[in-house]
Amino acid sequence: MRSLIDVVDLSTEELDGLCETAIDIARNPERYSDACRGKKLATLFFEPSTRTRMSFEAAMLELGGNVITMEDASSSSAAKGESVHDTARVVSCYADIMVLRHPKEGAAFVAAKSASVPVINAGDGGHCHPTQTLADLITIKREKGSFENLTIGICGDLKYGRTVHSLINAMSRYKGTKFILISPDELRIPDYVRKNVLEKLDIPYEEVSDLETAMPSLDVLYMTRIQRERFTDLDEYERLKDSYILTVDKLKTAKSDLAILHPLPRVNEISVKVDDDPRACYFKQALNGKLMRMALILKLLGSENYSEEPRVTLPGPACKNRACITGVEQELEFLYTEREEGGRKVRRCLYCEAETV
Amino acid sequence: MRSLIDVVDLSTEELDGLCETAIDIARNPERYSDACRGKKLATLFFEPSTRTRMSFEAAMLELGGNVITMEDASSSSAAKGESVHDTARVVSCYADIMVLRHPKEGAAFVAAKSASVPVINAGDGGHCHPTQTLADLITIKREKGSFENLTIGICGDLKYGRTVHSLINAMSRYKGTKFILISPDELRIPDYVRKNVLEKLDIPYEEVSDLETAMPSLDVLYMTRIQRERFTDLDEYERLKDSYILTVDKLKTAKSDLAILHPLPRVNEISVKVDDDPRACYFKQALNGKLMRMALILKLLGSENYSEEPRVTLPGPACKNRACITGVEQELEFLYTEREEGGRKVRRCLYCEAETV
Amino acid sequence: MRSLIDVVDLSTEELDGLCETAIDIARNPERYSDACRGKKLATLFFEPSTRTRMSFEAAMLELGGNVITMEDASSSSAAKGESVHDTARVVSCYADIMVLRHPKEGAAFVAAKSASVPVINAGDGGHCHPTQTLADLITIKREKGSFENLTIGICGDLKYGRTVHSLINAMSRYKGTKFILISPDELRIPDYVRKNVLEKLDIPYEEVSDLETAMPSLDVLYMTRIQRERFTDLDEYERLKDSYILTVDKLKTAKSDLAILHPLPRVNEISVKVDDDPRACYFKQALNGKLMRMALILKLLGSENYSEEPRVTLPGPACKNRACITGVEQELEFLYTEREEGGRKVRRCLYCEAETV
Repeated sequence: MRSLIDVVDLSTEELDGLCETAIDIARNPERYSDACRGKKLATLFFEPSTRTRMSFEAAMLELGGNVITMEDASSSSAAKGESVHDTARVVSCYADIMVLRHPKEGAAFVAAKSASVPVINAGDGGHCHPTQTLADLITIKREKGSFENLTIGICGDLKYGRTVHSLINAMSRYKGTKFILISPDELRIPDYVRKNVLEKLDIPYEEVSDLETAMPSLDVLYMTRIQRERFTDLDEYERLKDSYILTVDKLKTAKSDLAILHPLPRVNEISVKVDDDPRACYFKQALNGKLMRMALILKLLGSENYSEEPRVTLPGPACKNRACITGVEQELEFLYTEREEGGRKVRRCLYCEAETV
Repeated sequence: MRSLIDVVDLSTEELDGLCETAIDIARNPERYSDACRGKKLATLFFEPSTRTRMSFEAAMLELGGNVITMEDASSSSAAKGESVHDTARVVSCYADIMVLRHPKEGAAFVAAKSASVPVINAGDGGHCHPTQTLADLITIKREKGSFENLTIGICGDLKYGRTVHSLINAMSRYKGTKFILISPDELRIPDYVRKNVLEKLDIPYEEVSDLETAMPSLDVLYMTRIQRERFTDLDEYERLKDSYILTVDKLKTAKSDLAILHPLPRVNEISVKVDDDPRACYFKQALNGKLMRMALILKLLGSENYSEEPRVTLPGPACKNRACITGVEQELEFLYTEREEGGRKVRRCLYCEAETV
Repeated sequence: MRSLIDVVDLSTEELDGLCETAIDIARNPERYSDACRGKKLATLFFEPSTRTRMSFEAAMLELGGNVITMEDASSSSAAKGESVHDTARVVSCYADIMVLRHPKEGAAFVAAKSASVPVINAGDGGHCHPTQTLADLITIKREKGSFENLTIGICGDLKYGRTVHSLINAMSRYKGTKFILISPDELRIPDYVRKNVLEKLDIPYEEVSDLETAMPSLDVLYMTRIQRERFTDLDEYERLKDSYILTVDKLKTAKSDLAILHPLPRVNEISVKVDDDPRACYFKQALNGKLMRMALILKLLGSENYSEEPRVTLPGPACKNRACITGVEQELEFLYTEREEGGRKVRRCLYCEAETV
């Protein structure tokens, strides 16, 4: 039995397999309409994310399965102090697979260790949100035909956007990937992404502050939202914000087969008038997300005989990441893993993967 | 593909067709129990209305379909600032038909224009709530056998009650309809209903302030709630409220085949003791509402080839109705339609239908 | 048609029948997977209880039926002042059976009288929660093989725990039951349980304050949570709390076939390390609860021809129990039943069963 916590836990072959299944589902939906007959998916949302929840529920229903929902944490046993461990054990009695969204980093990992059914991470704080990345990847694949030799522009908030880091990570596996990272100075990608991914794997990238200059060379443009509250200097925000809004006008110099992506929800960072442009792929991305979730549910429900290689763990002091699940979950051992990263040994918390000791 | 925003968008023939289907469903439920197999209904409630939501969900399940639910706006992407347009586009990827309840007038119209699946308006602010009116109409039809030659008493708050205006509008189509409008002075029907419907179509009506005098002549009595907060003079409220409460006693002079309707929820405007009177139809109305929703879902899901005649629209200044969706939805053009009403040209907002320019 | 308000409304034969069905479901789930095809269960939670709600929903889905949910009272017609009576009447139009959780004592009884479909009480304030007790009982039965000749330790808050009182009541029916009641002085079982159940039926029991002394003799250990806020003296709480926490260490003197139960959610009253002990049955209990709910749904849906013997009722003054449904539900008659209890005539409120006149 297998769970999905992070998209990098999937091998390239597994990722390709998921894409193939998703595309086959899109072509032959009737072949899958009874695939999960009699199975139940539980969606456990300890913080709201209606879009993601509905996508998973639609996915399970289209596979012929059923759904039980916990839409809102405030009405849950968790409000009475129940641990993620207990929730996962109990919900294993009610459902065949569960989807967890939780504000604490590492929560999905704890659930996966405790549950007797597969767990899908639908976002654990700022840590991972693998099914969003799967939606991004399949959209690139379907629009561009291949993952190779693509120049990918990523625009907006590159500092805090977990989907951005995850996409960089995932696309860095493929031959010929080049990134153009478009952001204001305050919101450039964090050092650990630059060092541990781009430089380590020798991926060509440019950092620019201007969307219009970058536009002509892009095969893929991944837009994100710039949140006012991320700026220390609000004058700077006011001065900059319009330059990161995608308009019909700014698209004039773009390639005719550009694919424009956005994880949604959008606020105003893409003009509604762009929606009618055939290069706008962000609503297709929502559809693709559902297809990938269907493929993933099928894969995990069929993984009874899978057993994960146990990770070597070391006990240690309390994790210092304040968003880590270990800070709130009762009787959880503080455990660490050690690995080579950029030529040095790094010790990371087993749960939230923060380097805090 | 067709949506339902307002009950007056249905022709008399279509309305009769829905009633026939609903009655056939009541008689032969097994014939319909697989009619929507494999289809999904999304219920999107941006303000709570449990009764309406459950009625739609029960309807879809009895047709063999499935349901995905957004019970509460506060846990939605809308809370992150997502537009109705984007929500409708994305949910079109997850469901085959959607039901929308929204506080802003015109929201369902915006959703219908953006969605690629049919949209049913389950209430857009004070504007329309067509499936409540469908429940009212089928109840009159089933109880009285026909829509013709009925004297209809409407009692309570006739000023603010959107179901009241909608019922007057719909019943004014039929031969021999007569209204007795029973309300305190402060809560009489608005001028535009009197002029644009009753006087324009030459429908006989009386306005009275006393339920007991009106009672003997009524074929149908439609009760509504009088809300304390509607009164500017609370002494007036205290003096009047009991005279608009329906009791066993007040029913003594009523016809033996009177049909008592109420849109529910009731607070205390009908005594619980009236529930056992065979003339009390308000719980049947709830059942009928489900049947009409089933008929409507079937009709709309079967409307792939329907294409609406485009309305002639004119650009104009911002709509002045503060409850209009145009005040909050991003990049929505201000558009108007022009039509003859009571001998003069009237320009109305395309979205909320307010006459604001 | 029959409802379930209190576990004592079931005869010993009926209880045995439910256990048999539940065990057969566990063995042959495929035989039941279409048993409720086309039926709908409504879950109406006027206060949150995610665990109980999900258990019922999983149960109905595993029987092949469907579910409509009201997860949160704040988004319900009840918030507009609707009565339990009206809610029950209306939901009878939408569902074939309903589950009600409500903060007021007697609410489920009112719903059962008004509904035209069976009602299952999923907790009415401090009054009853029969399906929790059914989960407890079947777990004892499956673990111990029989209900007879068991020494049952109940540990923690015996004063306020409604599941504790219900369990004592139910197990007192069986031959050879002996209770060891383990609690701090402030939280001993109430006098009415001692007098009306234990002493009346001559059940052997001991009251002790120490878990460790009691341990060696127990066949079943039922743990509950001690809430800090129950103590008038917080120093006392601090002094005592650890002695009521079950640890691996305290289990050393226990029988090898002890069954450890807990109604869940747990906070910290059982160490997580105990979970791996084969004697820990509290997660099995969650599974068993689902099975018993399946058996109960089947039983009640098959009870069309059941008609309850009407209780003799007497009108009386307002019930003085401030948690009673009669205090908030409109136009509800104050009614009482009279019965022999411990040699004297006792008059109890028909709804909440409090002895208040």
